[in-house]
Amino acid sequence: MADQSIRVEKSQSRKAKPDSNNLVFGRNFTDHMFVMDYTEGIGWHDPSIVPYQKLSLEPSSMIFHYGQSVFEGLKAFRTQDGDVQLFRPEKNIQRLNNSNERLVIPPIDEELGLEAIRQLVEIDKDWVPDAEGTSLYIRPFIISTEPYLGVSPSHHYKFIVIMSPVGSYYKEGINPVKIAVEDKYVRTVEGGTGEAKTGGNYAASLKAQEIVEKEGFSQVLWLDGVERKYIEEVGSMNVFFKISGEVVTPMLNGSILAGITRDSVIQLLKHWNVPVSERRVSMQEIYDAHQNGNLEEAFGSGTAAVISPIGELYWEGKHLVINEGKTGELSKKVYDTITGIQYGKLEDPLNWTLKVEKSSVNN
Amino acid sequence: MADQSIRVEKSQSRKAKPDSNNLVFGRNFTDHMFVMDYTEGIGWHDPSIVPYQKLSLEPSSMIFHYGQSVFEGLKAFRTQDGDVQLFRPEKNIQRLNNSNERLVIPPIDEELGLEAIRQLVEIDKDWVPDAEGTSLYIRPFIISTEPYLGVSPSHHYKFIVIMSPVGSYYKEGINPVKIAVEDKYVRTVEGGTGEAKTGGNYAASLKAQEIVEKEGFSQVLWLDGVERKYIEEVGSMNVFFKISGEVVTPMLNGSILAGITRDSVIQLLKHWNVPVSERRVSMQEIYDAHQNGNLEEAFGSGTAAVISPIGELYWEGKHLVINEGKTGELSKKVYDTITGIQYGKLEDPLNWTLKVEKSSVNN
Repeated sequence: MADQSIRVEKSQSRKAKPDSNNLVFGRNFTDHMFVMDYTEGIGWHDPSIVPYQKLSLEPSSMIFHYGQSVFEGLKAFRTQDGDVQLFRPEKNIQRLNNSNERLVIPPIDEELGLEAIRQLVEIDKDWVPDAEGTSLYIRPFIISTEPYLGVSPSHHYKFIVIMSPVGSYYKEGINPVKIAVEDKYVRTVEGGTGEAKTGGNYAASLKAQEIVEKEGFSQVLWLDGVERKYIEEVGSMNVFFKISGEVVTPMLNGSILAGITRDSVIQLLKHWNVPVSERRVSMQEIYDAHQNGNLEEAFGSGTAAVISPIGELYWEGKHLVINEGKTGELSKKVYDTITGIQYGKLEDPLNWTLKVEKSSVNN
Repeated sequence: MADQSIRVEKSQSRKAKPDSNNLVFGRNFTDHMFVMDYTEGIGWHDPSIVPYQKLSLEPSSMIFHYGQSVFEGLKAFRTQDGDVQLFRPEKNIQRLNNSNERLVIPPIDEELGLEAIRQLVEIDKDWVPDAEGTSLYIRPFIISTEPYLGVSPSHHYKFIVIMSPVGSYYKEGINPVKIAVEDKYVRTVEGGTGEAKTGGNYAASLKAQEIVEKEGFSQVLWLDGVERKYIEEVGSMNVFFKISGEVVTPMLNGSILAGITRDSVIQLLKHWNVPVSERRVSMQEIYDAHQNGNLEEAFGSGTAAVISPIGELYWEGKHLVINEGKTGELSKKVYDTITGIQYGKLEDPLNWTLKVEKSSVNN
C-alpha cells in the first residue's frame, strides 16, 4: 500500500459512452481523472480521483513556455470473462520516474502511482470497451505549473492521469506500412532527451512526419544525429529486423526510448529461443541484407499498434520491399502472442498482466 | 494596418504595481493580455486584448503532452522624457514565424502581431517601470490546444502575449560570471529544433544547468552534439570571443538560436569597424588563444542581460581566467551602447527603436 491514501470524489453525472465498435483514438475521455500536486518544500500531496474537468492555469505557467513535462501511455484490456487487466503497468511508472530524472522533475512514489492507475481504472471500468481489439488507453502525465518566466526547474507540478477508450489499431487486419528513412531532420541525439518520454521529442518529430506523409509514407525511420548512419526508431515506435533468422534491434544508447513493448518482444523471443540481439544497426547493413536476400522481416513495436510490420523502406532513392510487402510470420506470431496475453486469451508465462480487482471501498 | 482589428476589453480593476526599485523577473504581470485563437479551416481569428486571466484547458490539450509550442521575449523601455519604446520588435515577430515553421504551427500575420504588442504595451504603459535599468518584459507565445492524444500537428492554437515589469539585471554593476563547458549533455543538434525558440530546448537544458550550479558555475557552455568540439551557446545566450582584436561568434548552423541581441552586437561592431566574424569556433581554439595570451574578452548576449561578460571558463579540468576576471572594454562599450539606445539616452544610428505612441482609440 502507498503512504498516502487517495481521496475519491465521484462525478455526479455520467457521460454517454461512445459506440464500442466505432471508437477513435484519444478524443473521448472517461468520467474521472487522477490529480496530484507537487509543491516545493511539501512534496507530492493530495492524491485525488475527481470528475474529469478542465485545468485552470496561469498563462505564465512554465509548461506553456519551457516544456518541462513527461508522460506515459499504457492500456487496460477487457478479457473474455469480463475482467479488466493492465499490461506491465509497473514498467510505465518506473519509466515515468526515469523521464522525471532527465527533466529535473521530482520522482513520484511508484507504489502510489500504480495504485492511482488501478483505482482510476476500477472506478471507470465500465469504460473499458469489449469489442475485438479495443481497449482503454491510459495517459499519465506531469506538467510544470509554477507561474514564473525564469528558465529553471519548476517548484510546482501536477501529475494527472486521464483515460480514453480506443478502437482496434487494425480494423481491417494487420497492414504493413511504407517508411521513409529521414536524412535531414533528427529526433534527438545522445546527451539529449531521447530516452525520456517528454513533449519536446514529439514536437521535434512533427516536421519530418509532415513531409513524408505528403510523399505517401506512413512514418519516418530516424537515424542517429551524429553519424546519420545508425537506426534509432521508426516514427514513435522501436524497430526490429529479422536477418538470416536472427532478430536485431538498436541497443539503448541514450537517445532511444526504452519501449515496454520492445522489452516484451525481446523477452518473448528469448522465451522462444529465437536469437535476438541489441546492438548498433546501420542502414547500410539493412540495405546489404536486403540486397543479399537475407532481410526476412521488419516491424515497429509500441503501445498503440503493438506490432506494425514494415512492408517497404525508402532510403536514398531506393525502395526496399520487405517480405513481398506482407506481414512476416514471426511478426504475426509476436503480435498474436502479446495481444493474446493482453486480452487474457493466452497463458501469461512471463507474469505481465495485473488484474484490476473490485475493491469494497470504492464501489 | 493589420487586416483584423483588435477587440479591446478593459479590465474593471487594476492590480497594485510592484515597487519599481524592487522588481523580480517574471513573477508579476500587468492588467491585460493579448489572445488570438487558431482553428483549422478558419485560420487565426478574434485577436483580443482582455483582462489578464487564467487559461482553462482540457487536460488532453496537446501542449500538455507533445510540446508543440513556440515563444519570444522582448522588452519595452521608458526613456528619460517619459516615452515608451520597443527594441527591434519586428525581429521577434519574424523569428516567431521561423520557429512556427519548424514546429509546424501556422504562421501569424506579422503586421498584426506587431500591432498586438504595440497596443498591449500602450494600454498597460503605466506598468513600464522607470527606475534605472528596469523594463517591461514582453512574452509572446503560441501553444497547441486541440484536445487530442494523437501525435500530429494540432488543429487549434492560442497566441498569447503577457507582460511583466522586470528589474535591472545588474543591480550591483556588471559582474563577470563563471561558466563550465558541458561535456555530457547536449542542448540540441543540427536537424533538431535548436534554431527554434521552443520549450523542448529549454526543458532539455535544465539537467546540465542543475549540475553546474551545484559546482559553483552560473551557466553551461554548450558544445555541438555531433563532434562535441565546437561552441554553440552559453546557457540561453549567444556567445562572443575577442581574440587578437577580432571578435568571433559561432555561425548560425541550424542548432544555434539566431539571437536578436547577437545580431545587434554584430551590426554595432561592423558600424564601429571592429573586425567580426561568424564561423565555427572550437573550444580548443579558445583554449589555445587563452594559453597564448590572445583571448582578450568573452561575453554572452541575450535579451535579459544584453551582455554578460565571462570571467572564467572551466574546461576539462582547466580554469581559464579571462581578462583577469574583469569586464572587458569592448564588452562594456557594447553593453553601454545597446542599453543607451534602448533607453533613448543615445542616438539610434541603426533605427532599432519603435515608439509606442498614444492612440486616440484606446485611451
